[in-house]
Amino acid sequence: MRTTVGWQAAGPAALRRTSLERRDLRPDDIAVQVDYCGVCHSDLHALHAYDQYTDAPLVPGHEFTGVVAGIGSEVTTFSVGDRVAVGNIVDSCGVCAMCEAGQENFCHSFPTLTYGGTDRQDGAITLGGYSREYVVRDAFVYPLPSGLDPAAAAPLMCAGVTVWEPLRSLGAGPGSRVAVAGLGGLGHLAVKMAVALGATTTVISRTQDKHDDARKLGAHDLIVSTDPRQMAAARDTFDVVIDTISAPHDLAPYLKLVAMDGTLSLLGYLGPVTVEAMDLLIGRKKLSSAGSGGRLATAEMLRFCADNNIAADIEVLPSSQVDTALDRLRRNDVRYRFVLDMSDLD
Amino acid sequence: MRTTVGWQAAGPAALRRTSLERRDLRPDDIAVQVDYCGVCHSDLHALHAYDQYTDAPLVPGHEFTGVVAGIGSEVTTFSVGDRVAVGNIVDSCGVCAMCEAGQENFCHSFPTLTYGGTDRQDGAITLGGYSREYVVRDAFVYPLPSGLDPAAAAPLMCAGVTVWEPLRSLGAGPGSRVAVAGLGGLGHLAVKMAVALGATTTVISRTQDKHDDARKLGAHDLIVSTDPRQMAAARDTFDVVIDTISAPHDLAPYLKLVAMDGTLSLLGYLGPVTVEAMDLLIGRKKLSSAGSGGRLATAEMLRFCADNNIAADIEVLPSSQVDTALDRLRRNDVRYRFVLDMSDLD
Repeated sequence: MRTTVGWQAAGPAALRRTSLERRDLRPDDIAVQVDYCGVCHSDLHALHAYDQYTDAPLVPGHEFTGVVAGIGSEVTTFSVGDRVAVGNIVDSCGVCAMCEAGQENFCHSFPTLTYGGTDRQDGAITLGGYSREYVVRDAFVYPLPSGLDPAAAAPLMCAGVTVWEPLRSLGAGPGSRVAVAGLGGLGHLAVKMAVALGATTTVISRTQDKHDDARKLGAHDLIVSTDPRQMAAARDTFDVVIDTISAPHDLAPYLKLVAMDGTLSLLGYLGPVTVEAMDLLIGRKKLSSAGSGGRLATAEMLRFCADNNIAADIEVLPSSQVDTALDRLRRNDVRYRFVLDMSDLD
Repeated sequence: MRTTVGWQAAGPAALRRTSLERRDLRPDDIAVQVDYCGVCHSDLHALHAYDQYTDAPLVPGHEFTGVVAGIGSEVTTFSVGDRVAVGNIVDSCGVCAMCEAGQENFCHSFPTLTYGGTDRQDGAITLGGYSREYVVRDAFVYPLPSGLDPAAAAPLMCAGVTVWEPLRSLGAGPGSRVAVAGLGGLGHLAVKMAVALGATTTVISRTQDKHDDARKLGAHDLIVSTDPRQMAAARDTFDVVIDTISAPHDLAPYLKLVAMDGTLSLLGYLGPVTVEAMDLLIGRKKLSSAGSGGRLATAEMLRFCADNNIAADIEVLPSSQVDTALDRLRRNDVRYRFVLDMSDLD
């Protein structure tokens, strides 16, 4: 086994620096030196749900960038020293219809998650990117385009592809009107990407405060969701509403904004949701959701971001301050994504 | 005022033959002699909700065919004696974005319903097609194509256009795979239309009993929803699932059948519905709904039905047996739509 060091859950909301084992490289494995790892809302959820007495070991982190530190005997597409990126999926069955369509995120036998997943060969629980080294199948490693800053690119691997897939599949582009509700890690990347795709892009926020931020991100307009006049004026106007609000909320006001035959895509809150069928019927509106991305979309998204100079707006903290990052994320005190610098683990 | 006769609610589930008044013809009005009126599930709901002490007068019926009996001074597109059809919308604002798009069914100030609506000029409560004469704006009267039997065509005006709009807007046609859940008034027309549009069409039913019926309607296959093996084998295979089941039901098993980027269109049950966001996320599936149709779609649907020899499979009863029709509809004892013959009102 290889040994490394990382931040492991030691209680419901506490992380402890710990020595970790990584598997010896299989023929198609790559060892990645993790330089930067984004802090995702999912990490908060996982830590919140963690039970130290019954759960398997938990090391969060599923959006990271770094450098190839070693390759298995059959790896041909990467060399030691290459800049790479890894997202929240590290394996899939490879043979189901979804995998064959390049949508490994929808694998019929469920993709192997970067942490908290079960390795398909040895049954080990996967330990995430809050660590200095990660070992992963080459098929789920992506070259990091040279134009992208490795710290700011890390959040593209989960937050980025999560908004990219619905924007692309719903046809965001010139002539289409996109609204983004919630301006956090997902939302700010959705705005940048929608603008770069050529869509007329509007931010929906609870207050006017975000107006300048929305403009800086490239948005063409901002609607204050607590202003009934503004919401009424925007009725039926957006082909795509990207809803990144992470707390449970009433979808009816957001469905009202969707244009005929348009779609509200739920990305932030992934629990049970209730809608009135009539709110879908009037205007033949659609409710959808998305999350993560397949290999094809992930590679396409990275190229698009490099070509359009898109990365996350981040605040970098040394990994030893992971508790601070999580605590501030819990209070939505981040514009727009924390990224942990893992070099302090050396 | 003009006088006619019809079947009016006289209690929560009782109808009484009554003399009714119709307005004098406005310049753009048409008086239609109602020959055949379909019995829709909505009629059951309206009668169930009817409260004789507080409600306005209720005459159900919103899918009917007949003959022009009189025209207003400015009507140019119809003449006395023309075969015509009327659906569940008899007016709309005409100026909102939805009306301008030909989607009067989504009118921003709500369309005027054929019964239980409020007339936009005099504020009168509209009384429906369970009557011998109906007076309606010419814009909401449709020529009945010569190839269509007037009795079998009546249900096209509500049930028919309700399934037509989602089939068309969701792209049902050659190369697409359509499933129809529930084989009643809506479902049997959805099967006929999907087949005629060129889609590979499957019926989903609780039992194998409907197999022969499904085949007769033109369906290529039947899936028994209570057979887990059949449901598992059909996972992710339908671009469009038309859900016509009228009772509240769990949508999860039906969402599983939807192909990636496909849509489940809820037509039968229009109350609040709860779904797991993850059931939409895995496969980027969409939940939608539809109901009724705009003027453009209604006219298009009638032409398509005439060209493809499509009408409802009906059981015709004299209007005096309306209680029998409603009672049997309540027990789902109809294949597939009751139509009342109004000539017994003369």
